[in-house]
Amino acid sequence: MAELRRDPVIGRWVIISTERAARPDQFKDIAEEEAMSPGEKCPFCEGNESMTAPEIYALRKHGTRPNGPGWEVRVIPSITPVLQIEGDLDRHGHGMYDLMSARGAHEIVVESPRHTDDFGLNAEQISKVINVSLDRIADLERDNRIKYVLFFKNYGKAAGGGHIKHARSQLIGTPVNLKRVKEELEGAKAYYDYKERCIFCDMMKQEMASGKRVISESKHFVAMAHYASRFPFETWIMPKKHSCDFYRMSRGEVPDLGFVMRDVLARMKKVLGDFPYNIVLHTAPFRRESNKKHYWETIDHDYHWHFEILPILTRVAGFEWGSGFYINPVPPEDAARMLNEIKA
Amino acid sequence: MAELRRDPVIGRWVIISTERAARPDQFKDIAEEEAMSPGEKCPFCEGNESMTAPEIYALRKHGTRPNGPGWEVRVIPSITPVLQIEGDLDRHGHGMYDLMSARGAHEIVVESPRHTDDFGLNAEQISKVINVSLDRIADLERDNRIKYVLFFKNYGKAAGGGHIKHARSQLIGTPVNLKRVKEELEGAKAYYDYKERCIFCDMMKQEMASGKRVISESKHFVAMAHYASRFPFETWIMPKKHSCDFYRMSRGEVPDLGFVMRDVLARMKKVLGDFPYNIVLHTAPFRRESNKKHYWETIDHDYHWHFEILPILTRVAGFEWGSGFYINPVPPEDAARMLNEIKA
Repeated sequence: MAELRRDPVIGRWVIISTERAARPDQFKDIAEEEAMSPGEKCPFCEGNESMTAPEIYALRKHGTRPNGPGWEVRVIPSITPVLQIEGDLDRHGHGMYDLMSARGAHEIVVESPRHTDDFGLNAEQISKVINVSLDRIADLERDNRIKYVLFFKNYGKAAGGGHIKHARSQLIGTPVNLKRVKEELEGAKAYYDYKERCIFCDMMKQEMASGKRVISESKHFVAMAHYASRFPFETWIMPKKHSCDFYRMSRGEVPDLGFVMRDVLARMKKVLGDFPYNIVLHTAPFRRESNKKHYWETIDHDYHWHFEILPILTRVAGFEWGSGFYINPVPPEDAARMLNEIKA
Repeated sequence: MAELRRDPVIGRWVIISTERAARPDQFKDIAEEEAMSPGEKCPFCEGNESMTAPEIYALRKHGTRPNGPGWEVRVIPSITPVLQIEGDLDRHGHGMYDLMSARGAHEIVVESPRHTDDFGLNAEQISKVINVSLDRIADLERDNRIKYVLFFKNYGKAAGGGHIKHARSQLIGTPVNLKRVKEELEGAKAYYDYKERCIFCDMMKQEMASGKRVISESKHFVAMAHYASRFPFETWIMPKKHSCDFYRMSRGEVPDLGFVMRDVLARMKKVLGDFPYNIVLHTAPFRRESNKKHYWETIDHDYHWHFEILPILTRVAGFEWGSGFYINPVPPEDAARMLNEIKA
């Protein structure tokens, strides 16, 4: 039985997921996940649809049937969900502690029917994945238990990519707001209360004026090395037009986002080789009557959705865990310069 | 030139440390640090003192001379300091951004003169390391630029332990308060404002009454699996007597802390094998007139210092980076039970 527990001091939630593993010897070689064993079939490949649970959604060629071939992007439930969709959301206390049943959604977005396709190298495929994610988030918004849907991608061993390389990303819908997003919402609101401007828009304007951390730009989007990057080559992609809700973006702008995302990832791959990375999407939580927050009033004006691309090239250790402070050995300006010098 | 940059939205500080590395090809095999090469001499071993910068401090046998043999614990400056002691603390803005020169302290505490000693297996040696750390923190407190000293330990590859195995921990003195400690201070203050009790004391009382997460106990200290553990087998060690300042602890209680720390680490080693881990110390920041915070008024009553032992057995990936939420596959009660069943 999985449950959500809240750290009583700082309010951080932890998913205690007993279904995933348990015996200590399972942890012994965390660093050495193997590749697929010879003869092992990939459950994410076209033709192997019966190896997964029935699909939740798919972008399919006209006339093809669910759970058979003919799809371009396919969404399936996670086989090891950290949160489960069935059941009620039960919150209770245990002495001074708070806990909650682990309800929510955990879906896998298979990004291509082909095993060897690289998500980062095809703008059209990226656009399809974005379109499917928009559809799924809009659908999950109708579930009142869910407050936020996190889109994320783990690529490569050091970034938690797992032993099957087939390109995929994930959607996790959570019954609580995310700590990281809350921190951004609170920071953005404080800035807005003081200046009556969006802090992300201001950042983007300053970056575009100086140019020294801009990596890619198109009509609707800009990719920049983040000024206070935690990780070497950390890059944020933002819509130029102010907007707090990713899932309400105009479908007409999706190909433009696909172009910028591909451009950044292709440049990174040329500079860094086949590097491990995570991508996360930060957007406004679902605003529900049942969940009014003090930042709801201004959120349309002060918050700005964005993707964070996080190459995992350094190791987080005691200093970072203890302090919440990061050490980054590559100045973001140098990262931007290296990425700009390369032909994508 | 290293500098500290503040994330404009959430206020997280990042050390942009250009002196540590730079070329992208240096990151290519983050996962495969090698062992020492044959013939390589360990700079931390007794007899090799001339391989390091002159010692800052050492616990020495009577009559032995600095920078020669005869020591039991030896403190030296880091050869790759993330913060440097020389120079003034310069804060300035850059458009909307804030930055600061990277001033502070970075010291290595060599925990034993012998290369093969294991920090976790000798209570007496642990006590010596604690005594030396107390002395160093008290000394660094006199430097007005430093607001906090973080004691931490990285053991094993996955925990950032480096390629030389010689037992050591580190002290980093920072010119800003730590985000993680600030979160604890604010949570503890909110609880105190409401209940007029220390949240850590309350947690400890509830844990000692139930017993199901207690791992080790002595006259002055208790070790518990943390209720909302981020990591499998995460364990906190706290003084039973309320106190916010580690560096003001009674020297008479140090051997008792060494006993509990050894007991926990030895049990973990029996259950988990030679596991990678981090240890971090959370204590009150230095209270200075120049740095008055709203939580200073109650900090003596509401904050409680503690060590966090964090085994690194799982991988943090997109979900954790994006959400600030953690997934822990081992319920803390199960961890405590397994550690209790073993003979230490």
